[in-house]
Amino acid sequence: MKLGEIAARLGLRLEGDGEIEITLPAPIEAAGPGMITFAVGPKYAAALKASAAACAIVPEELRAAAPGAAIVSDNPAFDFARVLGLFFPPYRPAPGIDATAVIAPDARIGADASIGAYCVIGAGVVIGRAAVLHPHVTIYPGVRIGDDFTGHSGVAIREGVTIGNRVTLLNGAVIGADGFGFVEHRGDLVKIPQVGGVIIEDDVEIGANTTVDRATMGATIVRRGVKLDNLIQIGHNCELGEYSRMAAQSGLAGSVRVGKWCQFGGQSGFADHVRVGDRARVIAQAGVHNDLAEDALVGGAPAIAMKIFRRMVAVEPRLPEIARRLRAIEQRLGLRGRGDGGAD
Amino acid sequence: MKLGEIAARLGLRLEGDGEIEITLPAPIEAAGPGMITFAVGPKYAAALKASAAACAIVPEELRAAAPGAAIVSDNPAFDFARVLGLFFPPYRPAPGIDATAVIAPDARIGADASIGAYCVIGAGVVIGRAAVLHPHVTIYPGVRIGDDFTGHSGVAIREGVTIGNRVTLLNGAVIGADGFGFVEHRGDLVKIPQVGGVIIEDDVEIGANTTVDRATMGATIVRRGVKLDNLIQIGHNCELGEYSRMAAQSGLAGSVRVGKWCQFGGQSGFADHVRVGDRARVIAQAGVHNDLAEDALVGGAPAIAMKIFRRMVAVEPRLPEIARRLRAIEQRLGLRGRGDGGAD
Amino acid sequence: MKLGEIAARLGLRLEGDGEIEITLPAPIEAAGPGMITFAVGPKYAAALKASAAACAIVPEELRAAAPGAAIVSDNPAFDFARVLGLFFPPYRPAPGIDATAVIAPDARIGADASIGAYCVIGAGVVIGRAAVLHPHVTIYPGVRIGDDFTGHSGVAIREGVTIGNRVTLLNGAVIGADGFGFVEHRGDLVKIPQVGGVIIEDDVEIGANTTVDRATMGATIVRRGVKLDNLIQIGHNCELGEYSRMAAQSGLAGSVRVGKWCQFGGQSGFADHVRVGDRARVIAQAGVHNDLAEDALVGGAPAIAMKIFRRMVAVEPRLPEIARRLRAIEQRLGLRGRGDGGAD
Repeated sequence: MKLGEIAARLGLRLEGDGEIEITLPAPIEAAGPGMITFAVGPKYAAALKASAAACAIVPEELRAAAPGAAIVSDNPAFDFARVLGLFFPPYRPAPGIDATAVIAPDARIGADASIGAYCVIGAGVVIGRAAVLHPHVTIYPGVRIGDDFTGHSGVAIREGVTIGNRVTLLNGAVIGADGFGFVEHRGDLVKIPQVGGVIIEDDVEIGANTTVDRATMGATIVRRGVKLDNLIQIGHNCELGEYSRMAAQSGLAGSVRVGKWCQFGGQSGFADHVRVGDRARVIAQAGVHNDLAEDALVGGAPAIAMKIFRRMVAVEPRLPEIARRLRAIEQRLGLRGRGDGGAD
Repeated sequence: MKLGEIAARLGLRLEGDGEIEITLPAPIEAAGPGMITFAVGPKYAAALKASAAACAIVPEELRAAAPGAAIVSDNPAFDFARVLGLFFPPYRPAPGIDATAVIAPDARIGADASIGAYCVIGAGVVIGRAAVLHPHVTIYPGVRIGDDFTGHSGVAIREGVTIGNRVTLLNGAVIGADGFGFVEHRGDLVKIPQVGGVIIEDDVEIGANTTVDRATMGATIVRRGVKLDNLIQIGHNCELGEYSRMAAQSGLAGSVRVGKWCQFGGQSGFADHVRVGDRARVIAQAGVHNDLAEDALVGGAPAIAMKIFRRMVAVEPRLPEIARRLRAIEQRLGLRGRGDGGAD
Repeated sequence: MKLGEIAARLGLRLEGDGEIEITLPAPIEAAGPGMITFAVGPKYAAALKASAAACAIVPEELRAAAPGAAIVSDNPAFDFARVLGLFFPPYRPAPGIDATAVIAPDARIGADASIGAYCVIGAGVVIGRAAVLHPHVTIYPGVRIGDDFTGHSGVAIREGVTIGNRVTLLNGAVIGADGFGFVEHRGDLVKIPQVGGVIIEDDVEIGANTTVDRATMGATIVRRGVKLDNLIQIGHNCELGEYSRMAAQSGLAGSVRVGKWCQFGGQSGFADHVRVGDRARVIAQAGVHNDLAEDALVGGAPAIAMKIFRRMVAVEPRLPEIARRLRAIEQRLGLRGRGDGGAD
């Protein structure tokens, strides 16, 4: 693709020769001759200057550092993502409904759908325009899905779940399985019927083998723009605020309320009924047992302010030494023998 | 449903007008006019009095606090769960075997089964009465399953697994995949054949995308009444005692022995060969490396008694301050310079 | 099977009566009369002497301790694994392509394949000799797979993934789902197209419901001999070195580089861009945020040298006591009241 065409399709200013043929987009450490790359801030200036790339998408301030041609952008990472899309349009199966799909007579599927082999679509299901169901998607009865839905193989959407527009579910994601609730009764554990639903709003992406449980009563809610990575657990009755992101293997227990634009690291966990303020960030493996204020930044288990956590873990490895020094002082002061075993 | 009918079907005493029409069961914080709710103990008395609900299921001691009518119960949570079941019978596909199910000629399936589209049932499989297999369940050869089985879409049951009565497997659960065992041999890692099985007893529920590995030799055993949440790993040769519960994303390594009525929090982990006594409780994210006594309550990684863990984590964030104070004392006593770097 | 035949098939020296009929292989704690067992080192000598087993596979040094007959081996665990294989050949469906498999006209499948019910194989897929696809395997277009592949039910292999020889994917494993990458743009989160691939080399085994994400650009690489347990997350652009092993529920964030012959415990996690040297070992639940040297042995979160971690966690539970003792010293020295709240 010619550089001029790339700039035109991005609607951005090109400084350099539009006739240059670009072979590939590549990150700055891998970009060679004929390639287009990008940089987002001054710390990449040196790498940019050293690069053999034919062109870089850069902010105005890095214009001078660009190796050859430059495309000037307010948001180079965003515009580079668009270039990736130009070079590699995502795989999309041809429209049409595979002959092996089993679709209930009263299900309604919008125009331009691609329904893959062995999909199963239950009674009363309604799906909007331009849906892509890869093979082996199972949609239980009564599900409602908006436009531009993508469901990858092995996805399960349980009865009565509601899904908005432009939602993507990666392979093996399970939406609306029963919440985990049992009550003891005379030496038995009796299941609490999980009669609530799940609402997934617009522009949500849910990762491979992630599970979002249905509510006991009411609904588990995943708001607009939420992004969930793989192998995440969302318990019954949780609510995830707009544009919040969770990294892989993190989990919410029941009835957790998460604000907007939060970011949770991998393997982090949240206890029942915790409330998390907007824009809170939680580092990987943290264990959140208490409510978090807006803009909180926490780590550790139980989670504490990141600033304190960092200092704490810097001292922790020296605990044995601290115990020894304490004992030395006690000996000096003649304080030993008052109940401390001396095993330190 | 009329209140009198609800009380009659529960077999419980109604105090109030049986002619009241109940529209919905709801938790106490959401229950409005015409709804039925419940409360389990005195701490809910105030909420109960303030509620606009038409009726509450309450223990005798809360009878006076009920907003309007009352249904008196020894176990309100249990009886409320039954009310949920009355109002919202769970989705159950019609009986019958879908034409697309692939069933081995010698498989035996009991009466009243509902076998969904694209299920695959292998040679020699025996399934009891009233099974519900949602679409896309795969049962490998030689599996034996009792009565009243429910398998949701995407479930895999590997060769030779044994399953009892009234067992439910949620979407994507995998029972009997190979345990994780390899032996080094001349610069290679050679698989140890996993030739054992899995035994799931009666009344077990296993969550979405949870994996229960087959034994290397012998059997991995999940005893009666066990409840496993989503995304749990049960390693080869584990044994889970009756009515024990594990929350989401927790995991047992190999050969762990768990007693009865244990409760494990989310993301908790158990090392190889650990033995856990009856009724032990392990909090979320704990890491259990040593055997636990009956009725133990532990947290942390490595897990310690919860009482000690709570005190420990209360002091930990003050470690940098403790180190500073220690240094101040040493300076006062002229003890500095004895090998501590002063970096505290 | 006669003992003489077992020794012959192993190609090992038998000391004892080759005519003995062996009924079962069993681990030493379970081995009874007529069974064959094994032991790897002197710590098993007593158990070996006490065993009723008919035969044990032992190293030369344990020859005298064997209960009855002995098979002498340089690597008893390896040779016992071979015995398991002799007694219990793994389940393998009959060769042939099930009539319900949906295979693209231009897909090429090698000789002796067994393709199960409802498998879906996309356009341009190439699969080598002797593949076993259990039911419900979905292979997206453009995938290339070597010889002797095994894919269990529910496996998904996304577009363009490359897989070597003798690779096994357990049930529900997902190879090549989109990496987790989004860029903020004007109040929205825009997906970064994940246009890279996944390369799985020879002799890899990947566990049930484990997810290996495709690269943003370039490839996520799983080198020869790697073994991944269940429910593991491998983020985009990671590279796992030869013969490295990860236990269940562990995870790598993006662009992690792992050396050869590493071993990672269950639920351990690795931050973005971490580099791990050859043979590094990481204990369960550790959180690795910094590069690890070759042969490192670390634990904790953040992970530190295991030697230090062990000492640290031995002292940690005594922190409240340490704080009390510190305060007592300060009181003795008249140092109290200098800003420490006294709440210790």
